[in-house]
Amino acid sequence: MLSYDEYKAMIENKLVSFIPEVHPYAATLRESMAYSLEVGGKRLRPVLLLACCDYAGGSIEEALPYACALEFIHTYSLIHDDLPAMDNDDLRRGHPTNHKVYGEGMAILAGDGLLNTACEIMSAQLQSYFSDHDKLVAHAKAGYDIIRSAGVNGMIGGQCADVENETKEATKELVDYIEANKTGALIAAPVLAGLHIAGADDETISHFEEYARKLGQAFQVSDDILDVEGDEALIGKRIGKDLEAGKCNYAYVLGLDEAKEMLHSLTEGAKAAVRMCGEDTEFFTQLADRLEIRKA
Amino acid sequence: MLSYDEYKAMIENKLVSFIPEVHPYAATLRESMAYSLEVGGKRLRPVLLLACCDYAGGSIEEALPYACALEFIHTYSLIHDDLPAMDNDDLRRGHPTNHKVYGEGMAILAGDGLLNTACEIMSAQLQSYFSDHDKLVAHAKAGYDIIRSAGVNGMIGGQCADVENETKEATKELVDYIEANKTGALIAAPVLAGLHIAGADDETISHFEEYARKLGQAFQVSDDILDVEGDEALIGKRIGKDLEAGKCNYAYVLGLDEAKEMLHSLTEGAKAAVRMCGEDTEFFTQLADRLEIRKA
Repeated sequence: MLSYDEYKAMIENKLVSFIPEVHPYAATLRESMAYSLEVGGKRLRPVLLLACCDYAGGSIEEALPYACALEFIHTYSLIHDDLPAMDNDDLRRGHPTNHKVYGEGMAILAGDGLLNTACEIMSAQLQSYFSDHDKLVAHAKAGYDIIRSAGVNGMIGGQCADVENETKEATKELVDYIEANKTGALIAAPVLAGLHIAGADDETISHFEEYARKLGQAFQVSDDILDVEGDEALIGKRIGKDLEAGKCNYAYVLGLDEAKEMLHSLTEGAKAAVRMCGEDTEFFTQLADRLEIRKA
Repeated sequence: MLSYDEYKAMIENKLVSFIPEVHPYAATLRESMAYSLEVGGKRLRPVLLLACCDYAGGSIEEALPYACALEFIHTYSLIHDDLPAMDNDDLRRGHPTNHKVYGEGMAILAGDGLLNTACEIMSAQLQSYFSDHDKLVAHAKAGYDIIRSAGVNGMIGGQCADVENETKEATKELVDYIEANKTGALIAAPVLAGLHIAGADDETISHFEEYARKLGQAFQVSDDILDVEGDEALIGKRIGKDLEAGKCNYAYVLGLDEAKEMLHSLTEGAKAAVRMCGEDTEFFTQLADRLEIRKA
């Protein structure tokens, strides 16, 4: 296994190259897509995909297109989220949001282009395995893991509930739904996809599924805590905006102390789940610990 | 072969059922997606897909998910096109546009949801052919035909050029690029996808590709002519809006008479191409004739 930063560097080296070359008439579209991909970020989702594939003995090279496709999907969701008709944010990761640079129309298209390209990347992979049935099946499973997690029973469903319920009082049940879908689904997907590409066995998949579910929840709870007490300069976006916008947030629904307890218990649960696979899972237990104490 | 209206009815019977059931918290999302799917339309793209698959001896039942996925993609592109940041249209097919009914935020999500669901539908198909390698390959090809045509070197690329060049004077070269990509690509894709699902031979595919390319161009030229001299009540949207918005339109670049000559010559070219496959291609020659004289 490599380190987090080594996986991250592999992704960042290739990410923009997965946008196809385009006709000069569509140059701004490609530029705006690249802009948001290059603004940076933790690359948590694609790193998880590479690490899971690598852990289970799969090829990192084969996993890389799926890791990048997933980051395309995550990036498109941020561009559309930031639009004036949604969260209306001017700043993301310390840089002007896509629509502040390219205008709203182009930002909508850049998001559409990123989602479509993600699907093209995954579909293109399948075209190269027509003579290898087992790989074709493994890759078709990985693509399905990813695209389902981003859909109406995943990320977009969570986003809808978030937009719809801004004016209502947040209940624990609603926050659970929003966070499991808006954020959790796209953290569980790379774990499954990476393991499917590697052809991992069902027992490994089942322990890692439990790990991913808890890690995703922990990630969201820590995000909610950062929105209350984080450092704006480190995070690169406004804090306190959940409360301002009436958004669902565990730190508001449960209180800060209980949210922190929940974060700790989820982190320990995630680590326990992945340790069921053996002692060679430090990458994943250390990642859970790092996410618990992150400042950005 | 069935009639156009019979294929159309098969699509309309199933279309909305391809949106997955969702949690009550995401009910508005599903409703807004269904609203735009149900507003109607010619269903030209999915009908072409079913007809091509049927012509080449494939199973209509196997082709139906791809036909519906394509209509999902076409519908999402209309929803995003109609947004205030893009064409800012209040009316589509005689009904209020998605954002006029559900608001801009939900309309953006409905579009995202339709594109994502289209990819889920196609990916789900693959999961059911793991024990049949030839079908798995045929379906993987069909999915790639569709998703590429909708991307940055297809529909979204054309849309970008359209948005970008509103303020510049339209040249024939620019109009060619925009119309080949914004409209043509999504008319060629179902022809290829339908034939791939049926396992058609390369010669048939090549004649039909030529047919599809010309039919797509003809369709666009007739659309441009309708924007100049069509009947608003029949079309169900404002006419004259291309000129008003400085949009690229063959009828303005070439003049109405030359545009009509171009339409006729493309229609005849499309018919000649498909007749190379034999005399049993009346469905496709008649369709070309119908599109030439359409009023809406």
